[in-house]
Amino acid sequence: MHKDGQVWIFDCGEGSQIQFQKSSLRPGRIAKIFITHLHGDHMFGLPGLLCTIGNAVQERPEFVLELYGPKGLRKFVRQSLSLSRSLLPYGYVVHELVPLSEQYPANWGEWNVDHDSTGPLHPQEKQGRDIVAGDGPSWDLLCDDGLCVKAGLLHHTIPSFGFVVTEADQNGRLDVSKLRGLGVPTGPLYGKLKKGETVTLKSGTIIEPSQVLGPTKLGRKASILGDTRDPWSMAHLVKDSDVLLHEATMQNSLHDKAIEFGHSTPAMAAKFADCVGVKRLVLFHYSQRYKPVSKETSESETTEILLKEAKDALPPTSACEVIAAEDLMEISITRSAQDTDTSEFWALRKRRSGGGSQDAQQLLAVASPKCSTYSATKSNQLVGENIPQFVSLFSVLYNKGCPNPS
Amino acid sequence: MHKDGQVWIFDCGEGSQIQFQKSSLRPGRIAKIFITHLHGDHMFGLPGLLCTIGNAVQERPEFVLELYGPKGLRKFVRQSLSLSRSLLPYGYVVHELVPLSEQYPANWGEWNVDHDSTGPLHPQEKQGRDIVAGDGPSWDLLCDDGLCVKAGLLHHTIPSFGFVVTEADQNGRLDVSKLRGLGVPTGPLYGKLKKGETVTLKSGTIIEPSQVLGPTKLGRKASILGDTRDPWSMAHLVKDSDVLLHEATMQNSLHDKAIEFGHSTPAMAAKFADCVGVKRLVLFHYSQRYKPVSKETSESETTEILLKEAKDALPPTSACEVIAAEDLMEISITRSAQDTDTSEFWALRKRRSGGGSQDAQQLLAVASPKCSTYSATKSNQLVGENIPQFVSLFSVLYNKGCPNPS
Repeated sequence: MHKDGQVWIFDCGEGSQIQFQKSSLRPGRIAKIFITHLHGDHMFGLPGLLCTIGNAVQERPEFVLELYGPKGLRKFVRQSLSLSRSLLPYGYVVHELVPLSEQYPANWGEWNVDHDSTGPLHPQEKQGRDIVAGDGPSWDLLCDDGLCVKAGLLHHTIPSFGFVVTEADQNGRLDVSKLRGLGVPTGPLYGKLKKGETVTLKSGTIIEPSQVLGPTKLGRKASILGDTRDPWSMAHLVKDSDVLLHEATMQNSLHDKAIEFGHSTPAMAAKFADCVGVKRLVLFHYSQRYKPVSKETSESETTEILLKEAKDALPPTSACEVIAAEDLMEISITRSAQDTDTSEFWALRKRRSGGGSQDAQQLLAVASPKCSTYSATKSNQLVGENIPQFVSLFSVLYNKGCPNPS
Repeated sequence: MHKDGQVWIFDCGEGSQIQFQKSSLRPGRIAKIFITHLHGDHMFGLPGLLCTIGNAVQERPEFVLELYGPKGLRKFVRQSLSLSRSLLPYGYVVHELVPLSEQYPANWGEWNVDHDSTGPLHPQEKQGRDIVAGDGPSWDLLCDDGLCVKAGLLHHTIPSFGFVVTEADQNGRLDVSKLRGLGVPTGPLYGKLKKGETVTLKSGTIIEPSQVLGPTKLGRKASILGDTRDPWSMAHLVKDSDVLLHEATMQNSLHDKAIEFGHSTPAMAAKFADCVGVKRLVLFHYSQRYKPVSKETSESETTEILLKEAKDALPPTSACEVIAAEDLMEISITRSAQDTDTSEFWALRKRRSGGGSQDAQQLLAVASPKCSTYSATKSNQLVGENIPQFVSLFSVLYNKGCPNPS
C-alpha cells in the first residue's frame, strides 16, 4: 500500500470528479474513500465518482474499492448505483461507522429515516463491516502496511466524524561503517539489527540496534475532520498531528451563528489545534461569503480574514503554523528524525513537481484544487509519493447546507 | 405560467448546477424538472440542484416544484434527500412515468432492483401521480395555460423517454381599423371576436373573426429526447417540431457500437428529423471523443464531424436545418404566422441579450453552457421570455456511461 501510489479521498461533494480531473491525480489510483458525514456537500459526488473510476480502470474485477462513512452511506451508494443501473468494472465495499447516541441531535427522531441497507447487494458490492466505537471513543477503520486510520467523534447537526491517519515509526538506516567497525559480518545479522533486534557476534560481543542504526524516522499523523461545532472529543486522536484539516466556516464575530449551524470559527479551530500540539493547522470549508485571496475584489471578504483570526487566536509562544487552504494548493510536510534537527521544512507548492524523486523529507502535501469561477467546488489534498495520496473533496456549492432540522 | 419567467429543466447530470450558474438563468425560477432516464449522467445532479434551489428561494412553503421521470426517480430523490438529511424551504412532487414492457431490456430481471418508493414521504414531498401510457403510446404529463407536455417511448438500455412541449395556437390581433370600417362598436364584441366567436351587430350584419383578426400565431413545438437507439416510436409526437434535441453520440462509422450501447449516430437523428418534418435539429450528447469546435487541436476530433454527417444524411430537398449544440449556446426560434411569410429566422446568440424586450418572433432559444476545460459538463437550454425557459442539462463526465447490463 505504501508503494503503489494509492489515492485516498476524504469526502466527495458534487463536482468532486471535475476538481479531481484538474489535479495531478488519476482516478484509477483511488483505493479508499472516507466520508465524514452524509450532508450532500460531502457525499453527492460519490455515485458519479464511482462511475468515473470505472471508466478509468477498465476491467479490474479483483480490485475492491473501500468506502468508510457513517451509517446510511451503504444505502445511499447502493440505491444510487442500483436505480441508475450502474454496473462497475471493479468491486466495492462500504464499511459503516455506527455513531454514538450523543452524535444525534435531539430532534433526530422527528424525521424518521431508515438508514439500514435493504434489498440485495449491488452486483459489485461486497458485504461491509459495521464498525462500532471502542474506548476513547474511537473507531478502528484499518491498520495495514504501516498506516492506521481511526475515526473520532464530532458534534455537528448530524453524526459527523474525523479521520486520523497515522504512519508507523520506521527504524533508521544501518550505518555500514559502524557495522564494520564493530566487526559485524555482512549477512542475516544486518537484517536483524535493521528490524531492531539485538544480536550476538561469534566473538560474544553483543550489538544493540541503537549502536548501528541512524535516527528513527518518526511516523507522521494527518487528521481530517468533518463539519463540527466541537472537535474536543477527538483531542486524544488528533494529538501531535503533523497536519490538521479543520473547518472554519465563519469568522469569529459570527460565532453564535456558526455554532447554531454546527460549525466552527477560526479561533475555535486554532485553540483546539494549539492545545493538542498540532504542528500545522489547515483551515478549510469556508462559507461562500469568503472569496479566495486570488479572487479578491473591493467588495468581497476573503479567506485572509479567517487566516488572520486563527493566527491571532494562537498564544504568542505557539509552534502551530496556520494556513488557509485554497483550491489546488499543495503543501509538503517534513518527516522529522528523532535525534537530529527536528525543525520542520514546510514547502508550499502550487503543483506537484512533474516526475523525478522528491526529497525524502517531503512525503506529505496538502493541496486544494483551484476555485472555479463561482467558487463552485473546493477541495483539499494531502498527497505524497511513497504513501497514499490523501484528497479531501467537498463541495461548497451549497455550503450553507440544505436547511436541516437542528 | 406563460408570464412569470419559469425555467424548466430537462435532465440533470452531476455538475448541472455549476453549469446553471454560468448561464443567465436563476435557480429560483426553476419550476419543473423532467428526467428522460435514470442513468447517472442524466440524474446525479438532481439532489444537489434541489438543495441549491432551496438556497435561492429562501422560504416558499406554498411553492411545489414538479419533477417528472421514469419509475424509480421518486425513490432516488427521496432517499438522497432523506439520507443527507436535506430539508427544503419549498415543496416538491415526483410524478413517475410507468414504462411499457418493451422499454425494458431482455436481461432486466437478472438484476432485480426495487423501484418502488418505500417508507414515509420526505417532509416536503407531496404524493405524486403514476402516469401510465395512453394510445400512441404517449404519456400525458401536463396541460396548463396554453402549454402541454407529453412523453413518448424511446428504446435505450434502460427505460428512456422523450418530452414534447406543445404551445397552443393563439388567435391573431384584432385589426382596429377593420373593426371600425365594419362598424363594430368598442366593447364586449371586441372580446368575443378576439376569442374567435362570430358576432352579430345591431344592424344585423354578421362579422366573422377571420374578417378582423390578424394571422393566427401558430403554437410552437419543442421535442427533447433522452438517450435512444431508436426514436421512431415518438414520430407521431415529434411530428412538425420547431426544434428537436436528438442525441448523436457517435459518428456514422461507429453505428454498430452506438446501437450496442443504446445510442444514435448523426445520420439516424437526421433521417428521423427529416421524415417527421422537424424544422430544426439540434444534435447533442456527444461522446467525449468529440471536442467542441472551439477546443479543436491537431489531434482531436470535433463535433464538426457529427454536424457534417447529419447534414449529409438529409435529402437535398430537406427543409430541416441542423446545428451541433455547444455549451452555453442559445438559439432563438421564430413563431410563424399562418397566412404571412412563414420563412424562419433563426438567430444564434452566444448569450441572452441583457434586459430589454426581444423580437416577439423570437420566443424560444436553445442554449448550451460552455464546456469546461475537461468537457466536464455539457448542457443545452431552450429559453424564452414569455414562455418557460427550457434547459437540458446532462453530464458527459462519464458519458460512456457506467457499463450497463444490456
